[in-house]
Amino acid sequence: MSYWSKYPHIQTEMDKVEEILTDTVKSRRKIVQDASMDLIQAGGKRIRPALTIISAQFGQYESDKVTTLAAALELFHTATLIHDDIIDNASVRRGVETAQSKYGKDIAVYTGDYLFSKAFLLVSHIDGGQKVTHLSRFIKSICEGEIEQHAAKYNSSGSVVTYLKRIKYKTALLFALCCQVGAETANCSPKMIRSLRRYGMSIGTAFQLKDDLIDLTGDVKTTGKPVGSDILEGVYTMPLLYTLKNNLFRKKTLDLLDKGNLEHKDIYEIISFVKEAGGIKYTQEFERKYYHKARQTLRHLPNHPNVIILDKLIDEMAIRVK
Amino acid sequence: MSYWSKYPHIQTEMDKVEEILTDTVKSRRKIVQDASMDLIQAGGKRIRPALTIISAQFGQYESDKVTTLAAALELFHTATLIHDDIIDNASVRRGVETAQSKYGKDIAVYTGDYLFSKAFLLVSHIDGGQKVTHLSRFIKSICEGEIEQHAAKYNSSGSVVTYLKRIKYKTALLFALCCQVGAETANCSPKMIRSLRRYGMSIGTAFQLKDDLIDLTGDVKTTGKPVGSDILEGVYTMPLLYTLKNNLFRKKTLDLLDKGNLEHKDIYEIISFVKEAGGIKYTQEFERKYYHKARQTLRHLPNHPNVIILDKLIDEMAIRVK
Repeated sequence: MSYWSKYPHIQTEMDKVEEILTDTVKSRRKIVQDASMDLIQAGGKRIRPALTIISAQFGQYESDKVTTLAAALELFHTATLIHDDIIDNASVRRGVETAQSKYGKDIAVYTGDYLFSKAFLLVSHIDGGQKVTHLSRFIKSICEGEIEQHAAKYNSSGSVVTYLKRIKYKTALLFALCCQVGAETANCSPKMIRSLRRYGMSIGTAFQLKDDLIDLTGDVKTTGKPVGSDILEGVYTMPLLYTLKNNLFRKKTLDLLDKGNLEHKDIYEIISFVKEAGGIKYTQEFERKYYHKARQTLRHLPNHPNVIILDKLIDEMAIRVK
Repeated sequence: MSYWSKYPHIQTEMDKVEEILTDTVKSRRKIVQDASMDLIQAGGKRIRPALTIISAQFGQYESDKVTTLAAALELFHTATLIHDDIIDNASVRRGVETAQSKYGKDIAVYTGDYLFSKAFLLVSHIDGGQKVTHLSRFIKSICEGEIEQHAAKYNSSGSVVTYLKRIKYKTALLFALCCQVGAETANCSPKMIRSLRRYGMSIGTAFQLKDDLIDLTGDVKTTGKPVGSDILEGVYTMPLLYTLKNNLFRKKTLDLLDKGNLEHKDIYEIISFVKEAGGIKYTQEFERKYYHKARQTLRHLPNHPNVIILDKLIDEMAIRVK
């Protein structure tokens, strides 16, 4: 991952994580391997395993343990993506065809389960009870969050507060967990664990807000996805929810949303309402608040090169365009 | 479960398992709770948790630990059923509407994941590492088995041997695991653990063979399911595979199978070929062999009331009609 290559003490660990990922998804059944490998090799940013490593390096860093844990967390993440794509009927993820589109929903369901099981297998070899408890609770919360999101689909009266709560479960929690388990494995102090977890929670929230903004304003040539997919799937994110709370815009926006079978021009019109109503700016302000919160958490960490890395990561995430 | 009520020392433990199951699937999100509860309360035969309890009672039986483990295994089983039903587009299971039919595939995917996570959560509280490793490997094998089955769909040249292997992963392994972890938790000797595991593997295999027979020969008034669903879904089980190996029947059976859009009369005709070719008898013979194997394993167990219970269970399973 080119981003981490400027930090050799992290890059070497990330290389080990990649190796574990590749080894772990090997299966006698080629189709499972293929379905998993496609997505894993598409890479993504690997922020989550990197956070695990970075957090652990604040304490007594044990390379094998931490890289195994980091790989397990990335496997969980990949499994949830594969299952998400079944729900969303998504055909493309990270620029590659999704498992459900390429192989069918059945393979996708089982591949996701397979990766969950492999992740638990990895984790059970490390410390047993505590980590598995964490991870089980996390999956449970992710599921509850996803189901909340499903239930909230096409719900035009959702509040921004409930929306933020959903983001917490859906996205931020995993970032937080990566930081937390990394720090715990390295026997960091409770204060450090707490600070790192909060860092993860804050940048995780900002990460999702950015994703939601990109969905509405991103350039298809950059993002690889057509604009407004969330709207099409009935996922009403902060910019839109904010717009729907504005009496000047609510009716005309709703009229379009309730139209059903939205066409491109409808999407563009909705997005222009969102911009006019200040929904984009409002969300960007929230996003900035969370970057700020993340920076605040770093103040509670001891002097360590990784504090600067975490700080720079915030900048990097803030300028993300896809 | 009326079957176990004749053995009070098992029934009291099963009651505890039911309580744990009901408590565990509670979720703040009602739809998850409903989707899980429907299936869990439909009950099934609860053979798997019963095997865990029965096996553990051969050693140092700790009620809380074993009933928690038994509940976890039943949760895993329920989760795999919910995911199976997505794959099969099944609308009815245990006489109730399936999660995927009632709530949609999305809720079904997440409810399955949710139950998996709750199961791991339960298990992580008991012994940590070893059990989780077992269970993770088990899920992995189940997934691989299900994917094998998926890949083997509509494959008319499958061998009986590969089919038995698939049954092993798909069904028998969980029976074996229930016996094994029950015995391990109670610190039974390696010899006892091995015998009980083999018992589970044998009756589990027989169980699936019986299921496959019932699918072809069962009375819809008793089974609640139309005959030949496996054929319709492209799942070619032992009776059919045996028939396809018979030169006198292969072509005419294949002609029907390859027809696509099979009607009732086609199904009935295929089943009559299977009967004529001796496919039913051949499979019943296999089934009997596995009951015999199961009985053989009991010889290696010490004198204990549960040996008789396991022996009677074989008889009970042999006369099952749905």
